[in-house]
Amino acid sequence: MKIVIIGSGNVAQVLTKAFLQAGHSITQMMARNLDVLVNFCEPLAIPYTNDFSQVDTSADVYIIAVSDGAIENVSTQLPIQDKLIVHTAGSVSEKVLQSKTNRSGVFYPLQSISKQVVEVPELSMLIHAAEENDLQLLLDLAKSISEKVSIANDEQRLQYHLAAVITNNFSNHLYAIAYEYCEKNKIDFGALIPMLKEQVNRLENQSPLLTQTGPAIRRDAATIQKHMSMLNDEEQKMYEWFTLSIQKKH
Amino acid sequence: MKIVIIGSGNVAQVLTKAFLQAGHSITQMMARNLDVLVNFCEPLAIPYTNDFSQVDTSADVYIIAVSDGAIENVSTQLPIQDKLIVHTAGSVSEKVLQSKTNRSGVFYPLQSISKQVVEVPELSMLIHAAEENDLQLLLDLAKSISEKVSIANDEQRLQYHLAAVITNNFSNHLYAIAYEYCEKNKIDFGALIPMLKEQVNRLENQSPLLTQTGPAIRRDAATIQKHMSMLNDEEQKMYEWFTLSIQKKH
Repeated sequence: MKIVIIGSGNVAQVLTKAFLQAGHSITQMMARNLDVLVNFCEPLAIPYTNDFSQVDTSADVYIIAVSDGAIENVSTQLPIQDKLIVHTAGSVSEKVLQSKTNRSGVFYPLQSISKQVVEVPELSMLIHAAEENDLQLLLDLAKSISEKVSIANDEQRLQYHLAAVITNNFSNHLYAIAYEYCEKNKIDFGALIPMLKEQVNRLENQSPLLTQTGPAIRRDAATIQKHMSMLNDEEQKMYEWFTLSIQKKH
Repeated sequence: MKIVIIGSGNVAQVLTKAFLQAGHSITQMMARNLDVLVNFCEPLAIPYTNDFSQVDTSADVYIIAVSDGAIENVSTQLPIQDKLIVHTAGSVSEKVLQSKTNRSGVFYPLQSISKQVVEVPELSMLIHAAEENDLQLLLDLAKSISEKVSIANDEQRLQYHLAAVITNNFSNHLYAIAYEYCEKNKIDFGALIPMLKEQVNRLENQSPLLTQTGPAIRRDAATIQKHMSMLNDEEQKMYEWFTLSIQKKH
């Protein structure tokens, strides 16, 4: 399969590495920033260009992994006709590609991909395509790099994205709050990690509704009181919201 | 080492299994509920009693793993003198044991241990003892079942416990909210799990302050708006708190 990647940011790089690890070759990488292209593509022997007019027009799929707001504009500049073009964004409609092509699609890795990501993480892939043959192609491509592939339309992808923000971004912020709290009190944040790993591992087999523990669900007012007295105003609001919300749900 | 476990609940059972796996033998298990004792102890060939007067008085350490409010009362009923007695609670002072003995201690597994826990999870151990020899004994015992052992006094253990509630209990509640949201919208919660695993794995090497991603930190008002419109009133409060708090911290 001939794959052209447009973009050179975190998502473009992680997908490219995942494709290479799965045995695909990348036909070409295209992006504005030539320095990044040189650094990333040369060690991996990937052809690259920063010129739209030099984009390989013979590929099977064009994967646009650029910032949300730039997707539409980039798609219209591609010097191709009647080719499958997909973007990789969680909360951007597939429709933005349809000013360029009817063969639109989405190839969205449901994963938190920041600059710090060096190794390719395990990916869940959410895919969609306007045409059935294209969907089959994306399905094969997604399965080659992921064990969890789901078909999701715009609305479903947005729902997944919201669920990802709540579970991943917000719990990461809870970790950050606890991290700073541990640093301030000179206790070891690392001591919490086995517990956090175990918690996530349990999600494979058990609903998180069944594994809730802690003072809120036990309605342990003495401990809740103690904890509240150890927090600042902003943190207290958060502690209170969670305590009430846990008690309401259980 | 001769170990007597008092209690037959989740923590008592998990610690007992961990000791057995580490090659210790359990001298005796003591609890009120004879049925639970029979079911748990007989397959493991652990001597047991539900009678305080039958407690083995020759052990090296007595581990009280009962509910927080019962610890002091249980300790005073033990028919022993001048022996090391520890409890296993996160937010109970070691001092509650000192009406019984000067050889008090704490042996606290920093882990979410609910009825659903069948296998022994990786444990972080927080330990303390009033006397130095006892601390050494607990240190050896803890290291035999855990790779992460820290010494923590009452205040520090309470701080760890608060950090555990924030990271583990509260993020579990976020998972529960997302789980119900996925069920309601018929999308697959399981698709989120690789991302959540990756997030926790990153904690081993990176501060969560460096790995924050998502619409809040990107100040992506359009996505935040979309997400808010997809949530109920109570969830909106939570979404708003996190968004503002993330933006404030970064």
